[in-house]
Amino acid sequence: MSKIIRVNMNSLSVTAEEVPQEYRCLGGRGLTSTIISREVLANCHPLGAENKVVIAPGLLTGTKAPCSGRMSIGAKSPLTGGIKESNVGGTAGQALARLGIKALVIEGKPEEGQQYLLEIGENRVRLQEARDLQGKTNYEVGEYLTARYGKGAAYISIGPGGEKQLSVASVAVGDLEGRPTRHAGRGGMGAVLGSKGIKAIVITRQGQSLKPANEAKFNEVVKSFAGELADGKKALTNYGTAVLVNAINKVGALPVNNFRYGTLEEAEKISGETLAQNCAERRGKTGHGCHRGCVIRCSNIYHDANGNYITAALEYETIVLLGSNCGLTDLDRIAQLDYMCDNYGLDTMETGAALAVAMEAGVLEFGDFKGMQRLIGEMVQGTLLGKLLGQGAYVTGKVLNVDRIPAVKGQSLSAYDPRGLKGTGVTYATSPMGADHTAGNCLPGRTGLDDRIAEGQIAASREIQVLSTICDNLGLCIFVGPVKGNLETMTKLFNYMTGNDYSPQKLMELGESIIKKEVAFNEKAGISKYQNNLPEFFRTEELHSGLVFDVDEEELAAIFA
Amino acid sequence: MSKIIRVNMNSLSVTAEEVPQEYRCLGGRGLTSTIISREVLANCHPLGAENKVVIAPGLLTGTKAPCSGRMSIGAKSPLTGGIKESNVGGTAGQALARLGIKALVIEGKPEEGQQYLLEIGENRVRLQEARDLQGKTNYEVGEYLTARYGKGAAYISIGPGGEKQLSVASVAVGDLEGRPTRHAGRGGMGAVLGSKGIKAIVITRQGQSLKPANEAKFNEVVKSFAGELADGKKALTNYGTAVLVNAINKVGALPVNNFRYGTLEEAEKISGETLAQNCAERRGKTGHGCHRGCVIRCSNIYHDANGNYITAALEYETIVLLGSNCGLTDLDRIAQLDYMCDNYGLDTMETGAALAVAMEAGVLEFGDFKGMQRLIGEMVQGTLLGKLLGQGAYVTGKVLNVDRIPAVKGQSLSAYDPRGLKGTGVTYATSPMGADHTAGNCLPGRTGLDDRIAEGQIAASREIQVLSTICDNLGLCIFVGPVKGNLETMTKLFNYMTGNDYSPQKLMELGESIIKKEVAFNEKAGISKYQNNLPEFFRTEELHSGLVFDVDEEELAAIFA
Repeated sequence: MSKIIRVNMNSLSVTAEEVPQEYRCLGGRGLTSTIISREVLANCHPLGAENKVVIAPGLLTGTKAPCSGRMSIGAKSPLTGGIKESNVGGTAGQALARLGIKALVIEGKPEEGQQYLLEIGENRVRLQEARDLQGKTNYEVGEYLTARYGKGAAYISIGPGGEKQLSVASVAVGDLEGRPTRHAGRGGMGAVLGSKGIKAIVITRQGQSLKPANEAKFNEVVKSFAGELADGKKALTNYGTAVLVNAINKVGALPVNNFRYGTLEEAEKISGETLAQNCAERRGKTGHGCHRGCVIRCSNIYHDANGNYITAALEYETIVLLGSNCGLTDLDRIAQLDYMCDNYGLDTMETGAALAVAMEAGVLEFGDFKGMQRLIGEMVQGTLLGKLLGQGAYVTGKVLNVDRIPAVKGQSLSAYDPRGLKGTGVTYATSPMGADHTAGNCLPGRTGLDDRIAEGQIAASREIQVLSTICDNLGLCIFVGPVKGNLETMTKLFNYMTGNDYSPQKLMELGESIIKKEVAFNEKAGISKYQNNLPEFFRTEELHSGLVFDVDEEELAAIFA
Repeated sequence: MSKIIRVNMNSLSVTAEEVPQEYRCLGGRGLTSTIISREVLANCHPLGAENKVVIAPGLLTGTKAPCSGRMSIGAKSPLTGGIKESNVGGTAGQALARLGIKALVIEGKPEEGQQYLLEIGENRVRLQEARDLQGKTNYEVGEYLTARYGKGAAYISIGPGGEKQLSVASVAVGDLEGRPTRHAGRGGMGAVLGSKGIKAIVITRQGQSLKPANEAKFNEVVKSFAGELADGKKALTNYGTAVLVNAINKVGALPVNNFRYGTLEEAEKISGETLAQNCAERRGKTGHGCHRGCVIRCSNIYHDANGNYITAALEYETIVLLGSNCGLTDLDRIAQLDYMCDNYGLDTMETGAALAVAMEAGVLEFGDFKGMQRLIGEMVQGTLLGKLLGQGAYVTGKVLNVDRIPAVKGQSLSAYDPRGLKGTGVTYATSPMGADHTAGNCLPGRTGLDDRIAEGQIAASREIQVLSTICDNLGLCIFVGPVKGNLETMTKLFNYMTGNDYSPQKLMELGESIIKKEVAFNEKAGISKYQNNLPEFFRTEELHSGLVFDVDEEELAAIFA
């Protein structure tokens, strides 16, 4: 029987609840956002006892559906002040789901300075004091847990960034090798987990694959969908998400030097092709899956020129935000910064964006690799500059009096310039998550529109935002494609899994209802529809191509009305 | 003929416009908020070319009405992100009004680093480059202008705080002695003026007293009102606003150590009585007026034990926020900090509140006077900590991870604990200005309610907010009392001045309409009614008296619905 586990950090007690009937069609983001909407006061302090962290595998997570190992981590965000879902792969989502855990709700707040390890086994969930883990980095925690619980154990952890409750702190999830390379990066979920005194969660047993309501039909769809994805996503398999570097550069939407430029002459140096070549030549790996059952396998293991491990899961967004957008175009160096962020538990995107803003303010030169290493170090050492950067790009820019701060609702834009990819610009502006490409990425060619023209982008982004929410509800990786072409398959998987008989339209309505819950939460948190906008400079400052962001402001405000 | 002067800082040009008919009943805050609502994009960057600074004397400013020398400075605020009116005395308001200048609208933005002096004479307004004033403190600017234009000249200026565009930067106005001791402190108006490249405005001629529409009747009301005020406000005349120290301490609402306590054993040391005694013994002065025609004269000139000038206009809010709330209870030292803030052009309230939050974070010990001097210095030197403090209490607390940040809509509370004075708490929570006692201060005994009980406070605060807005529209100092008992007199003054025949109720409606314009601007700026709330700790943390802030959240949200 599936259940909801509540961990109360005031009383240090754990209880299991039956899953209410009304949560039957919800998983992942659908469930985290619903529970937070119902149970968390919208105006509470994000790092106080009133906030809750909800961790929920998707509806299909733990089944044989391809690329379905995703998990959502939700809370009121210290970065945006609104509701947040941060999505992550790795092995923990499947492990939780296979133990029948539909959601883990962590509430309350322990005494100052206490740290706990939450141990989840087949029939037991218990809190243990974990003073010895205090201050440990994610790689250290991963090694400790693997040594103690074995290679089969899955885990979730925070690094010093989360312990220090930085708004850029991520939550790490172990990958198939037991390394903490998968991150729920956005929105400071690591800080909220840190405020709860949870240093790590270990799932010691893997349980059984979940049984769909209509197993035979489900398996049929799984088979054809898996084949389709394996055939159709070869570029991701071969080059990783970094395959986007050349593609996005080509359309003039590659952020360079704090979104000053949209193209980079040296793009090839940080491209997926270069990454793949390095992996091949240095005993690294591309085509690496972040969880079992992934047929796309867009991840990688990245080695240095001597064949030694630097990092894994070096993603496009990391390469751009810690790389080109900071004026850094050396892939090995970017990989080192990625490792630092993973190890300390910092969102590579928000960290990179904050560093670029600091560069704009003259704190560092663009491209100053050693300076970036030093400042990322300061973020967890807790110097004043480190604390400032740890609040993300928006606060950093405000304090340093920078006009050009690429952030919406307190969260930095990711690796797509909204002037060149206007659908993604609409998503940045309007998602209740703050600027977040994963909420609805209108990649070149995806929407059928000319991405440089404002017309039609509101509707296009809206549709992709809803489809992305459906993916997040199901626990499907968005790399399967949050596109209308996949809706029928997703509907079948949903129906055969849950025993429902939804039409594709009804599934869209479900996705939309989740976004509307989030918007309603944000409203009560004081984040109104008029925050559905991009910073002024994207409207006034032309890219080299002459493009500015010119989507109508009233339409942005009204997108989810 | 009265006129609106527009100063365009893009083209460095000055134009005069007739006053539109519909502005006839508006002055001060009514006019600044109306012009900003109409002309400024709510979502513009507060320090960008799209924002405007509007400076407007009240409707009665420049007449013989008692205590009517107030002036409003308005803009979109870099501190709150919303509309702002900051109210100030001194001699500039009357000087502008008597030259027939109903409003000064400063728009656009000059080239980076350019500084200008705006010279306003009888028939000429001109911009002059003022490179030699760059980096000068307010006292230096005041001396320079007095030397150049004579003692009769009035002026408005910013210090290094405004030049650095700190969100806590004030706008100084010269007093009767030509000292820059009157400040439009709140909301960072100095930063906006700094972003426009305006270092100072000098009004070289004093012009003629304004002629009311019905002069005889006007003068009759003036005479009786002046007598009433002179008789009824003797405590303010004798002890200054610091008379409130003992009064507010007595009701347990005196902020101490970052709003940790509501009473102070040593309150006597910083009381109005002590202040008056020091002034008497040291050749200082109480009963000092901030502008001609003030019959209350709540200001003072404060000397040290050797009889040398320290500062003037040492106010209750300064004494509390730079004093007791920072653990400092030495009046001479508080006076020195007041001088520093005046000289550098920093709001004493927001600066004090930010320092107290930094103390809570452990940056300084409470009561560390030398540390406070050093940090106020750093704010204009531009160290990182200084820049952080220069963003005010909210951002300081966020970066330093302080849970207890006493701020609403980004602006710090002033010198009244909202748990003990719940009407003022409602004003803090709901005013479109952010936490600001001047928007509607429900002082002990003012509303007829028990100030410790939530019931009725919404209506009481709302009424006093409207009455305060009427004062601000008229240019009457709020020390005449924003109370129903003065409404009839204010209505008469309004009618006899403008030739209207408003009922008191209609004047209240006018006041209300101004607030509603401000609320509407804020909504478009993304500040919704759900930001009408106090920080969580005021609801959960009891004062020694056992009081918490417990006014209903939904009612706070709905106050201006």
